[in-house]
Amino acid sequence: MSSPKMTIGNYLLQRLKSLGIGIIFGVPGDYNLPFLDQIEDFDDIQWGNNCNELNASYAADGYARIRGIGALVTTFGVGELSAINGIAGSYAEMVSVVHIVGTPSTVSQASGAILHHTLGNGDFRVFANMYKEVTIAQTNLTKTNAIEEIDRVLNECLNKSRPVYIGLAVDLSDYEINVDPLSIEPLKLSLVRNPIKVHRAAIETILDLVKKAGNIIVIVDSCANRHGMMVKVLRFLERTQLPVYLTPMAKGGIDERHPQFRGIFAGNCSIGSVQKEVYNADLILAIGSMNSDFNTGGFTYRLSQKKTIEFHTYHTKIFYAVYDKVDMRELLPDLTEHWPTNIIRQYNGTKRNIEPAILDAKHQTEIVHEYLWHKLPDFIPEDSIVVAETGTSEFGIFNMRAPKGVTFLTQILWGSIGYSVGAALGAALAGKDDNRRVFVLVGDGSFQLVCQEISSMLRFKTNIVIILLNNDGYTIEKLIHGPDRASNNIQMWRYHNSFEYFGDGLKQNRDQAITGFAGQVKTREEFEKAMTQVLNETEKIHFIEIVMPAMDAPKSLVLTIEGTREYKKREQEARE
Amino acid sequence: MSSPKMTIGNYLLQRLKSLGIGIIFGVPGDYNLPFLDQIEDFDDIQWGNNCNELNASYAADGYARIRGIGALVTTFGVGELSAINGIAGSYAEMVSVVHIVGTPSTVSQASGAILHHTLGNGDFRVFANMYKEVTIAQTNLTKTNAIEEIDRVLNECLNKSRPVYIGLAVDLSDYEINVDPLSIEPLKLSLVRNPIKVHRAAIETILDLVKKAGNIIVIVDSCANRHGMMVKVLRFLERTQLPVYLTPMAKGGIDERHPQFRGIFAGNCSIGSVQKEVYNADLILAIGSMNSDFNTGGFTYRLSQKKTIEFHTYHTKIFYAVYDKVDMRELLPDLTEHWPTNIIRQYNGTKRNIEPAILDAKHQTEIVHEYLWHKLPDFIPEDSIVVAETGTSEFGIFNMRAPKGVTFLTQILWGSIGYSVGAALGAALAGKDDNRRVFVLVGDGSFQLVCQEISSMLRFKTNIVIILLNNDGYTIEKLIHGPDRASNNIQMWRYHNSFEYFGDGLKQNRDQAITGFAGQVKTREEFEKAMTQVLNETEKIHFIEIVMPAMDAPKSLVLTIEGTREYKKREQEARE
Repeated sequence: MSSPKMTIGNYLLQRLKSLGIGIIFGVPGDYNLPFLDQIEDFDDIQWGNNCNELNASYAADGYARIRGIGALVTTFGVGELSAINGIAGSYAEMVSVVHIVGTPSTVSQASGAILHHTLGNGDFRVFANMYKEVTIAQTNLTKTNAIEEIDRVLNECLNKSRPVYIGLAVDLSDYEINVDPLSIEPLKLSLVRNPIKVHRAAIETILDLVKKAGNIIVIVDSCANRHGMMVKVLRFLERTQLPVYLTPMAKGGIDERHPQFRGIFAGNCSIGSVQKEVYNADLILAIGSMNSDFNTGGFTYRLSQKKTIEFHTYHTKIFYAVYDKVDMRELLPDLTEHWPTNIIRQYNGTKRNIEPAILDAKHQTEIVHEYLWHKLPDFIPEDSIVVAETGTSEFGIFNMRAPKGVTFLTQILWGSIGYSVGAALGAALAGKDDNRRVFVLVGDGSFQLVCQEISSMLRFKTNIVIILLNNDGYTIEKLIHGPDRASNNIQMWRYHNSFEYFGDGLKQNRDQAITGFAGQVKTREEFEKAMTQVLNETEKIHFIEIVMPAMDAPKSLVLTIEGTREYKKREQEARE
Repeated sequence: MSSPKMTIGNYLLQRLKSLGIGIIFGVPGDYNLPFLDQIEDFDDIQWGNNCNELNASYAADGYARIRGIGALVTTFGVGELSAINGIAGSYAEMVSVVHIVGTPSTVSQASGAILHHTLGNGDFRVFANMYKEVTIAQTNLTKTNAIEEIDRVLNECLNKSRPVYIGLAVDLSDYEINVDPLSIEPLKLSLVRNPIKVHRAAIETILDLVKKAGNIIVIVDSCANRHGMMVKVLRFLERTQLPVYLTPMAKGGIDERHPQFRGIFAGNCSIGSVQKEVYNADLILAIGSMNSDFNTGGFTYRLSQKKTIEFHTYHTKIFYAVYDKVDMRELLPDLTEHWPTNIIRQYNGTKRNIEPAILDAKHQTEIVHEYLWHKLPDFIPEDSIVVAETGTSEFGIFNMRAPKGVTFLTQILWGSIGYSVGAALGAALAGKDDNRRVFVLVGDGSFQLVCQEISSMLRFKTNIVIILLNNDGYTIEKLIHGPDRASNNIQMWRYHNSFEYFGDGLKQNRDQAITGFAGQVKTREEFEKAMTQVLNETEKIHFIEIVMPAMDAPKSLVLTIEGTREYKKREQEARE
């Protein structure tokens, strides 16, 4: 009797499934077709046919932010390069995405054939080399290394929370390897332990400082979110009873009704009371911080390094001293355990105030930003997923009240416009089983880059709520530079006809999403009526085009741009 | 009196203008806005706002194929990576495209600030490094090197007919350099001369062979087209009176009514008489050949190396012997001059036969490929530009009759689906002054990747004729593999509503294209009526959606796929 076998493609799928992947995004191409067949034939993993590869990479990223890991398949050269901006975004923002690239046959690669989708020079490594810059691990599977290499890169993907690259030759997905499909052991995540002496020294130093400090606060940032740290962070907070602030990139990581939650901190963009509290602290515990321009109100943080302890995955930094390789994933639980009982005081801060909307008297019925971001949470059910596009929307949600259990998806560091539409698709399919509905907020300018993915939203029967802010152009760019410049003006579209254009109701599109509201709203009354319909029709997909005054923008955006200008001025002066 | 000065941005624009560039494609981003202002303020160069960066790179490529050189501007990170697939295509297919990337300020780069559109690691070279793989020259402009570096990379771009990369920091476009705008000398193209002894040896060897050969033919391929060689090739043909064949990638390079033109040669995909003539030759002069899979009927060339002389830019190959650095651009004119007078015979081959359409009796009224490609030339005026998408269309035009002066744009080597739509926009703007109308043939699957660029076609007031072949899915992939697979099926759209969706008639879109036909045609009668309208309404843009039987395909595509299968089988057998 021959020993049990399985194909390389099915081994990879088995692993992805065990990590929680239920759909793989991508676009077909002749070098990946045999693997796509395997996906179609594989139980529990769906093929997520996108309209183009960039959108597929956004979808895989959105999916990963909800489920912990996502995947996409593209074809060699043309396909993988179209997706590379999205993968770079996952790298920058620390999202675990597995990118599988269907490559030409091992025979053609060995002979250096001049195939389509190559540069015509017989070099089959050139694109994989480019991917080294934006993935944490890469592999080119062979008949002999497939098992070890698949396991190695998946380990890296999860452990470092960054994308990985797997090259799978078109003739290898069906190649059988000696693995018994019934006895595959679960993937062992090999987390490197902290260097024990450095770890202990860090703990002791922190505890000394903690005992001496009067007023300690915690600021939680995106890296904590990304590395699956939030359970550990919550345990730490509940033990220590310290007040906690989130950065814009971490918004939604902790329920805003949590008694210790005090607000979103982003320098000058924070509301006044938050700034006051943060700047009055004696000691700041910054967990997973990512001090990028748009995450810090345009570099308007005025936190003293002499008061700050930074917790990262690659080191811990106490004031100016670096404790190398002391990873917060091990350090924080240990700190929780050793927190001095005698300094714990049940937290009883005053109830956090929500800033009221300050509505301009001259805009009584128009949908201005100040109105929108204060009103919107009334229509967002608990446990929803809110995807906010780079630009006005990402700034709009900074200080927006977050209903319980809502996850926020933004790309504050990488900031690729159009991301939100693909990410919304991915998030919707990731949240489907848990009935988590997606609300995506996207500007007209950004929408134009990626409009076709509405087609996939229909095709996959989602109930996404698309809220398009139509302010006739790239308002964020206009605010930064050149409000009257032609380059910031765009063609006006009939955005609210998207469902119709992308095939709603055509007999060929069997089993697609049922469409609900699809139209323009120009007044608050119209907006609220439409959102009420959205809330009632939970099974349907909706498209609300909000017509807004062209140069109106969220306060936090205006403040961030001012902050950045000031920063540039200081930088320039320091140099001269 | 101070010496005359100009800004770095304006110097670059001045150079681009002198090379024939009248429009620069791209997408705004905050790191390129000052340069975009300069474009807007610069006489004779227009800003070509695209809907996304990939489409911009396709447009720049299409423009370059008509005008000799094209350009685009993107922003750092997100923008440039979205365009990289298009630039790789220009690299593979040898098209001169200048890619200008707006980068963060020199001050921020020096300080390693964590800015948006970066990977968050303070590394500002990472994307430029990736671009080294797909551009022939790169530069990062500084205050001191700007003039020399701009001239150097533009020289490389034209000389090697490949894309180049220029990094322009946001604070440098306005920086003034000591150049008198009124006395800039024209860019000197520095062509390296052939090594004289090797060159002479090659000429002598070729002339010896020529004198001995009975039946000499010429095959002209894409590299001749790309390196502006066609004038030299025509002079050579007219002197030598040899019969000439073109490859699919060179189609349109020589007028098909030229008395010496014999047909398109692509191995098994060529018509029978062409194959017979080519295989009967004693000596083959192959000018600028690119023997990729889809350019050779799926590697079904059966040309003997022992009968072939290959003319390239980097070497000349006579049978098995390589004459290194002997560039055809110098060699061919020299060969023309020294061609032995005594062997010249006025060419008087029989009139070339066009294969008649073989129409299936069961399809009497439907628009099948065999009908389409035989009928289409009746509606293509002289000097038009035909852009054919990768997939069924690129194969459809192989043996299509080419009206006089028609240029064909396809991406047979790189084959990035969706290319045709962006390239059509670029070609239309490049051909506008010469009244060259663009006809673009695109499949439904490919169109979905890039649909939004219809918006730019409207916005730039083009009179493009978009012919969409709707065969409900990725037919080429179905033919290659898995006709019944779900991955090859796509959402059906209301394609012919494109003009309406992308803003036709909206009052905000002043001065946009005037739309003509926009609808579906299902019968030959309907098609011909629509095309007659197209011909009459030359100032308007038209959208013809042709509904075709799903699995019908051009004969040449079927033959190429068969050829590729055979090739793979042989390759596999040779290995086993």
